[in-house]
Amino acid sequence: MKILILGDVFGRPGRNILRDQLSDIISEHDIDFTIINGENASGGNGLTIKNARELLSLPIDAITMGNHVWHQKEMLDAIDDFPQIIRPLNYPDPCPGKGYKIFLHQNKKICIINLSGQIFMPNLSCPFSSIQALMDDIKDTADLFIIDFHAEATSEKIAFGYYMDGIATAVYGTHTHVQTADERLLPQGTAYITDIGMTGPLDGVIGVDKEIVLETMITKRPKRFVTATGKVQINGIILEISDVDGKATAITRFYETYEV
Amino acid sequence: MKILILGDVFGRPGRNILRDQLSDIISEHDIDFTIINGENASGGNGLTIKNARELLSLPIDAITMGNHVWHQKEMLDAIDDFPQIIRPLNYPDPCPGKGYKIFLHQNKKICIINLSGQIFMPNLSCPFSSIQALMDDIKDTADLFIIDFHAEATSEKIAFGYYMDGIATAVYGTHTHVQTADERLLPQGTAYITDIGMTGPLDGVIGVDKEIVLETMITKRPKRFVTATGKVQINGIILEISDVDGKATAITRFYETYEV
Amino acid sequence: MKILILGDVFGRPGRNILRDQLSDIISEHDIDFTIINGENASGGNGLTIKNARELLSLPIDAITMGNHVWHQKEMLDAIDDFPQIIRPLNYPDPCPGKGYKIFLHQNKKICIINLSGQIFMPNLSCPFSSIQALMDDIKDTADLFIIDFHAEATSEKIAFGYYMDGIATAVYGTHTHVQTADERLLPQGTAYITDIGMTGPLDGVIGVDKEIVLETMITKRPKRFVTATGKVQINGIILEISDVDGKATAITRFYETYEV
Amino acid sequence: MKILILGDVFGRPGRNILRDQLSDIISEHDIDFTIINGENASGGNGLTIKNARELLSLPIDAITMGNHVWHQKEMLDAIDDFPQIIRPLNYPDPCPGKGYKIFLHQNKKICIINLSGQIFMPNLSCPFSSIQALMDDIKDTADLFIIDFHAEATSEKIAFGYYMDGIATAVYGTHTHVQTADERLLPQGTAYITDIGMTGPLDGVIGVDKEIVLETMITKRPKRFVTATGKVQINGIILEISDVDGKATAITRFYETYEV
Ligand SMILES: [Fe+2]
Ligand SMILES: [Fe+2]
Ligand SMILES: [Fe+2]
Ligand SMILES: [Fe+2]
Ligand SMILES: [Fe+2]
Ligand SMILES: [Fe+2]
Ligand SMILES: [Fe+2]
Ligand SMILES: [Fe+2]
Repeated sequence: MKILILGDVFGRPGRNILRDQLSDIISEHDIDFTIINGENASGGNGLTIKNARELLSLPIDAITMGNHVWHQKEMLDAIDDFPQIIRPLNYPDPCPGKGYKIFLHQNKKICIINLSGQIFMPNLSCPFSSIQALMDDIKDTADLFIIDFHAEATSEKIAFGYYMDGIATAVYGTHTHVQTADERLLPQGTAYITDIGMTGPLDGVIGVDKEIVLETMITKRPKRFVTATGKVQINGIILEISDVDGKATAITRFYETYEV
Repeated sequence: MKILILGDVFGRPGRNILRDQLSDIISEHDIDFTIINGENASGGNGLTIKNARELLSLPIDAITMGNHVWHQKEMLDAIDDFPQIIRPLNYPDPCPGKGYKIFLHQNKKICIINLSGQIFMPNLSCPFSSIQALMDDIKDTADLFIIDFHAEATSEKIAFGYYMDGIATAVYGTHTHVQTADERLLPQGTAYITDIGMTGPLDGVIGVDKEIVLETMITKRPKRFVTATGKVQINGIILEISDVDGKATAITRFYETYEV
Repeated sequence: MKILILGDVFGRPGRNILRDQLSDIISEHDIDFTIINGENASGGNGLTIKNARELLSLPIDAITMGNHVWHQKEMLDAIDDFPQIIRPLNYPDPCPGKGYKIFLHQNKKICIINLSGQIFMPNLSCPFSSIQALMDDIKDTADLFIIDFHAEATSEKIAFGYYMDGIATAVYGTHTHVQTADERLLPQGTAYITDIGMTGPLDGVIGVDKEIVLETMITKRPKRFVTATGKVQINGIILEISDVDGKATAITRFYETYEV
Repeated sequence: MKILILGDVFGRPGRNILRDQLSDIISEHDIDFTIINGENASGGNGLTIKNARELLSLPIDAITMGNHVWHQKEMLDAIDDFPQIIRPLNYPDPCPGKGYKIFLHQNKKICIINLSGQIFMPNLSCPFSSIQALMDDIKDTADLFIIDFHAEATSEKIAFGYYMDGIATAVYGTHTHVQTADERLLPQGTAYITDIGMTGPLDGVIGVDKEIVLETMITKRPKRFVTATGKVQINGIILEISDVDGKATAITRFYETYEV
């Protein structure tokens, strides 16, 4: 089985390039299941109902989120209407939405989990104890466990990868919007990469117009962020998974740029 | 001209793999000038006098540093005895050491600059105004400007890259210890990568023994860090620079792992 | 001379209680000069032009600001029209507004300075080097130096107090919205207090409706902040200053609560 | 019943002033039960076994801790030998020590609880959900609930006070080392103060030699901290509690300075 996972879709440029390219990518690479991170899909800030529907009209099976999950307030009420959307597991209970979901696909039960890190991030519950509690509950109910670990610090992401090594099928990072080059199978077989990158504007600053970001960083004064224009990129990974034992056999980076 | 730049050398494993491999790498890739980041070379924390001498006995032309620069206290007094060591420019004056140095090499004046970011980092002076002031002073005194931007946040690193685009020959990030896959020539020609990665243990957490890091992250209690053992990696980039106009013509990632 | 200084005026409750009580306080305590911190005067976030005019129609001589200074965007263009408004000195140049102002009052030149701390605060320039550079310039041009040090960490505030001890007439903290009980004359004579507190709602959380704050802290999900209602407080200090040598002779806390 | 609670005892100056003055304070104010915060009692960093015994040889009934609780490593193994020492409740399980303890005193069951905040603090579990879970368990097993909320941000401390209003007998803050002037009975009767202050050197920076702190803040370079010398202070509060219903009837600040 081949699973395509794409990094944080950013604003209209990110949504449009998926509309234009996703089907071709899926065909070309013989993809069976597609996951995207959608926390920045609406103007860089969260996900509106409209944009969720727009993305889910494409061949996308699951959408994970991150620290921006509630920045479009309507999603607080709407998230439970979207079985495909998964928000970080380690929000305190009770919380709208769900932190994982098991998809039945080609006779495989694929569990997709979203978690937030703590270092340089909002104060959610400990991701290590959250995943431990979840796995104690559900480890026998799925065949594959794919985890989007949405975090800033490389140390926390790598440590989390080792923590799940041999337990999860794959642990991949999101949030920094820059793809890392450290993809590999960890010693116990879990596929790992620190960050899969971003799907959106290439010539901005993690999605935002670069002149605006520079102005705020130089003046230290706030300014309303605007999505960058111009060329775009699609960033992500392709996981190959054994049909025999459900273990990852390969993790390959996907990094394409497009004129628009 | 080809310049090899290697990411944060971590502890004895990092120093030893350079002792064993650096000459071969330099020969094989026809390297003219070599820069390493040395902020973690002594047990992961700063750089001792002894280790500085050990590294400089290898074919290393310049050593840049970062937030760990003063963690071996003896370096406060000794740094001015090492013309090859460069610490972040944006420490407040007066400060031992220097934030840049111009090397004369093959009739080219190569200016190496080290700067620290501010986001999720110590409160040094603004790197944007620091580099502006420096460039106002020295822009006509060197042919190449190579900048190690030691920072955590991808946004600040990318923004800094754009800020220097067309001015610096190359801007590369260090500090996260994970190599990124976004190397490219920016629109105005500056070679750029968000992080060049780490030279040291492969199977630790950014250099540290993974069991210890996991224990501190799970228990939230401190524990003395120990350098990881086992396989090692050398991470970095190779810059190719035109002899005609001193502009970067290529930036290539270097990422090798070694059994030890 | 007696100077009244009032802590961060918060929203309409803060503005209204000053409208109702300030003149009486000034009469009762025989105040000669009045300073307020206005960074939260408009809905808790910055200061609108309208609210600035409203406050300056009261017997207020100077308004200092803080990290919220630019949260009402119109103030970026308008601040230079208000000679009484002082924003943190350590914003990078160029920046609208000014970081200090010398007022001529009763034949005394009173210099009011506003500075931001760095610990747990935005990345402005170092307040220690900023004040050093300013004092090198202007130390002979005023009789009194009164500094609003807008900062979070008690360590940085106390350290700054000592740094200016014997140089400034008074150093007082703002930003935490809670008055501290450590007012005193430092060894070299500078009047000091870590925080003068807030002027606004008593039964909120530093000005904001407590149920909303509790909900955000418990759920870790964002919610729009609303100013608290009910009883209000006026917090501040009264400085007494010798007419002979311009030194502080007393610093007294002012802490009153009012039914509304 | 009168309970004396003293803020963070800092180093030898803090321990010595308690040795010299505590008995007199207890007599003079007719104190029935004494609590101190001991997280800085050993050189400013944690609490050694020796210093714990030294403090407990004084008329001290309970010692609460904070973020420095494990900075003397021997306490990890020893803490369970000290029934009087209480560390923050919201360390993840399992963890040495305990987060609360019920003392039987004058026929009253006094429950002392220690909790850490999250804002600008280490990533412990949410204090709101931690206290909720604890109170669900034990609310009927004690007569008084006294909570040391060890936190940085005034917003989190005040919010926590309101959260426990009418449930806890008293909520008091520690950690900033500066006493606040906002002591009061909250609307539902809980005694509250944002910070009770520090017991230790008066003329340092939250306990540390001021020249050293200033040097680190100005140069941005690390330097080994040394406890300040000279005058000392004892900071804290006195709670008066009704024998009839166990509710707080008064909260009074205690703030004395001493020549040594
Ligand atoms: Fe994102
Ligand atoms: Fe994110
Ligand atoms: Fe490093
Ligand atoms: Fe670093
Ligand atoms: Fe404020
Ligand atoms: Fe503020
Ligand atoms: Fe403390
Ligand atoms: Fe503390």
